[in-house]
Amino acid sequence: MVNIIRFDNVYIKEYASCVGKNEGEGPLGDWFDLKENDMRFGEESWEMAEAELSRRCIEILLNKSGVKGEDIALVTGGDLLNQCIASAFAVSGSDIPYLGLYGACSTCAEGMIVGASMAEKMGKDVISFASSHFCSAEKQYRFPLEYGGQRTPTSQSTVTGCGSFLLSDSGKIKVTEGLIGRIKDGNITDANNMGAAMAPAAADTLMRYFISTGTSPKDFDVIATGDLGVEGFELAKQLMMTSGVVMGDAFTDCGIMIYDAQKQDMHSGGSGCGCSASVTAGHFCRLLEKGEIKKMLLIGTGALLSKISAFQGKTIPAVAHLVKLESVC
Amino acid sequence: MVNIIRFDNVYIKEYASCVGKNEGEGPLGDWFDLKENDMRFGEESWEMAEAELSRRCIEILLNKSGVKGEDIALVTGGDLLNQCIASAFAVSGSDIPYLGLYGACSTCAEGMIVGASMAEKMGKDVISFASSHFCSAEKQYRFPLEYGGQRTPTSQSTVTGCGSFLLSDSGKIKVTEGLIGRIKDGNITDANNMGAAMAPAAADTLMRYFISTGTSPKDFDVIATGDLGVEGFELAKQLMMTSGVVMGDAFTDCGIMIYDAQKQDMHSGGSGCGCSASVTAGHFCRLLEKGEIKKMLLIGTGALLSKISAFQGKTIPAVAHLVKLESVC
Repeated sequence: MVNIIRFDNVYIKEYASCVGKNEGEGPLGDWFDLKENDMRFGEESWEMAEAELSRRCIEILLNKSGVKGEDIALVTGGDLLNQCIASAFAVSGSDIPYLGLYGACSTCAEGMIVGASMAEKMGKDVISFASSHFCSAEKQYRFPLEYGGQRTPTSQSTVTGCGSFLLSDSGKIKVTEGLIGRIKDGNITDANNMGAAMAPAAADTLMRYFISTGTSPKDFDVIATGDLGVEGFELAKQLMMTSGVVMGDAFTDCGIMIYDAQKQDMHSGGSGCGCSASVTAGHFCRLLEKGEIKKMLLIGTGALLSKISAFQGKTIPAVAHLVKLESVC
Repeated sequence: MVNIIRFDNVYIKEYASCVGKNEGEGPLGDWFDLKENDMRFGEESWEMAEAELSRRCIEILLNKSGVKGEDIALVTGGDLLNQCIASAFAVSGSDIPYLGLYGACSTCAEGMIVGASMAEKMGKDVISFASSHFCSAEKQYRFPLEYGGQRTPTSQSTVTGCGSFLLSDSGKIKVTEGLIGRIKDGNITDANNMGAAMAPAAADTLMRYFISTGTSPKDFDVIATGDLGVEGFELAKQLMMTSGVVMGDAFTDCGIMIYDAQKQDMHSGGSGCGCSASVTAGHFCRLLEKGEIKKMLLIGTGALLSKISAFQGKTIPAVAHLVKLESVC
């Protein structure tokens, strides 16, 4: 049973993106609303820096849209930090009702599905956002930054970024469908190869979508996974090929797009909740709004591990949620 | 703007509860579906013990209802562990689409709101569950169990428990309304007094609900907060009184109900995502189904801190989500 969720009247009315220095210097650098060179965002800790990143991103979204916080029925948010404190502290003090989500790096797509469902249900404006921060993620998941640990070739670099979306009953980008992913476990145990862990989940969701809707990759201008990175993206292509689907030129990955792999020494590319969120808000939404992209699929990809489960030698379960976005132009 | 979410056709068709030894020996012990004396649930780590607790709770729910996993459109889950691994590992291998939530101890109520919205939207059965485990929580948030740390008088004991709910278009318990909470920060910094941190959020949500619906405490047989504990519950009562609302005899707290405070030496009572989840699934649902409770409000209460934010001296933001449940009898 594949349950495609269809939305009749939900649009991305406005969008905003905030990123750090490396993302600002990457190929998409011109398009983010805010590029901040101070990785601390004026705060004393990496965790509060990430909260401030998200707070600013929501503020910019409200300013761009002209909508007041008091007219927002709900904000959904999520990040990678333990107990999702970046999102909670970002929203604390705003008086906007808050739902916390945890989908690891799939949170942007998860938030769009939950946010669109709630916007439709409530008949009100809803904000969805997702963030990650290189320094807070390194500190939590890997090594203290000062240690200067070597990274393996398949490792990805956590994006310092936030993307936020105002979901409403009008706009130039229509959210038309959603598909919630199943947890897939490809028996990967290497926490430095999360692309490989997430590829089976991405392929599973794509296959369920194509079979259920009778569509194929050629029906879309863009099919973008969230943060599979170089290895994971190749694996996803191969898995789709094995199932008889050639993904073609529309297939891309936000984690590969956000950095110039050669010039920026980013190994397998970007990752983190903020990767697909900032690339979608900074790049894809602009092209959808202008009609340069007519139809796209965003497949948020999340590795559902923790440092503890990795240390215990557990395999990495992963999930991928799909959202279909269409230009109204 | 208060946005009460109204559900026309969502019911708790079935429910299941699994708990550990202390909860099984408490005043509600007779009513849980599974009482497990092995705190490891046959697993090698506390984290996987919690995952197994939730896996069994979902299995019992499916068995009680006679519904097959393949007919479930979605499962929403959440817990207190870093990156919510208990929920992810519980669902991994089931092939049921999964949405991860993080609302700290408010996750049971959050899951009911999101789950009911999605069940209505998709026209399909949805499962919501939430769990916590004393040993995985102590290990992660406080001290190694072997250390035998003294607990402060206001501290609460994390419930080893899971509650799961099958949300469908028929049943004897109707989910009629939901209200998503705003983040409230009462400037509490003591991570051993989370009841005090959560009381302002509970009072805020209750006041928004009563004012918006024109109801008062006497309109309900039960008004149950999730896990305020003894101190937090008294504070919530006082905050409501200050706003001119006498909560009366219907007002209770799952964290106070689940243990016999005197006999079981549980200080301020129970806490954790599994507290309100197991008490609702083990106790309230049974009484709603029999018609012994006609109308109740469940207010899930969550403290949105992490160990890091507490160590950094940050205050504890909190949130409270409300669900109205009605007996069809």
